Amino acid sequence: MRYAVLGTGIVGRTIAGKLASLGHDVVIGTRDPGATLARTAPDGMGNPPFAQWHADHGQVRLETFEAAAAFAEAVVNTTAGEQSLNALRAAGASNLSGKVLIDVANPLDFSAGMPPTLDPVNTDSLGERIQRAFPDAKVVKTLNTMNCFVMVEPARVAGEHTVFVSGDDTGAKKTVTALLGSFGWPEASVIDLGDITSARGVEMLLPIWLRLYGTLGHGDFNFHVQGARPGA
Amino acid sequence: MRYAVLGTGIVGRTIAGKLASLGHDVVIGTRDPGATLARTAPDGMGNPPFAQWHADHGQVRLETFEAAAAFAEAVVNTTAGEQSLNALRAAGASNLSGKVLIDVANPLDFSAGMPPTLDPVNTDSLGERIQRAFPDAKVVKTLNTMNCFVMVEPARVAGEHTVFVSGDDTGAKKTVTALLGSFGWPEASVIDLGDITSARGVEMLLPIWLRLYGTLGHGDFNFHVQGARPGA
Repeated sequence: MRYAVLGTGIVGRTIAGKLASLGHDVVIGTRDPGATLARTAPDGMGNPPFAQWHADHGQVRLETFEAAAAFAEAVVNTTAGEQSLNALRAAGASNLSGKVLIDVANPLDFSAGMPPTLDPVNTDSLGERIQRAFPDAKVVKTLNTMNCFVMVEPARVAGEHTVFVSGDDTGAKKTVTALLGSFGWPEASVIDLGDITSARGVEMLLPIWLRLYGTLGHGDFNFHVQGARPGA
Repeated sequence: MRYAVLGTGIVGRTIAGKLASLGHDVVIGTRDPGATLARTAPDGMGNPPFAQWHADHGQVRLETFEAAAAFAEAVVNTTAGEQSLNALRAAGASNLSGKVLIDVANPLDFSAGMPPTLDPVNTDSLGERIQRAFPDAKVVKTLNTMNCFVMVEPARVAGEHTVFVSGDDTGAKKTVTALLGSFGWPEASVIDLGDITSARGVEMLLPIWLRLYGTLGHGDFNFHVQGARPGA
């Protein structure tokens, strides 16, 4: 399948690399491909510049948001939450129309320093904002509640653990659940929380995720809903 | 030990009953004991009136918030979040001073209908508000992330699952961890998230908890942090 992954950070790279390794045709979208490739410094979290990653992943092309979305049958939003709506506008509503739009982003607000807060929160969510802004896209919020390495390799965390899906389109959630299966998520680990308003709940997991990351000192953990299945 | 449980709802009754069954000396605090006992109708969730529960739990006394807190060596706040600060003011700062104050409440705001939102949220929490309002109390936020029946009988949910503790006083958190042990929580299931600002994260679990409650159709589930312990 043809995928566009919007965002060149560690989350986008990790998902794009996984999709390509599964045989999909993957384009990463960015605002300005030339500028992205010209960067030589590590990002704020110490990840190597994109060009270095790209040299090892030549099968993944880098294009503008618009060209990437136009090419794709399904789109994955991995941009920073505060940039997501702008990135998707650059991708273009017509290039998102009718497509599954997997939203992995979190609306973290670093404007008041660490730890980040959420904006929107409580009475709205980034997932809902994206669905409202692009009513013809089939938005599915998922995978935002864990480290990106766990997203594409759930076996990094021993035992059963949970991935949530939220969205208004049942068919799109089925498509995403199948994709998650190809990432290594057993179907029994996927919990469908209902419509896109349930994105509030999964985005609001971020503050405790960040606390746990600090407390545990590593990102190889995940939430599991114990008791979700009778007898399990 | 002498416990005051503030609040006569299902959470307060369940915790008070458990504490009494463990041999503690327990008083439930309420605004107006006469009015509480005079009620004959079920509450909004269909729970029987307090007097009916009390008839089966004669060893638990009912007193004013103030008398209950004055009597107790440790206090448990199970009042509705929007009422908690008023209830604690009625209990009296001097009656809370130096004591462990276990905060089980969630700041659910039903003013805009269902589902409730949180107030405060994101940049503040009820746990922090209580600690700021009563700086001489040793506030420990815990148990607010699950159904009250699971709080006092974790084995209702099969498998390992997690209870969080948040608070500024390490000794108070140790005391609470020991109490949780007497409720049936293995020490390995208790995650200390750090200071009371981490109450934000655990209170922000409520929206997804409420979604899961609706999706699963029962309350016998709980969050487990998978991967929290090396090799576990």
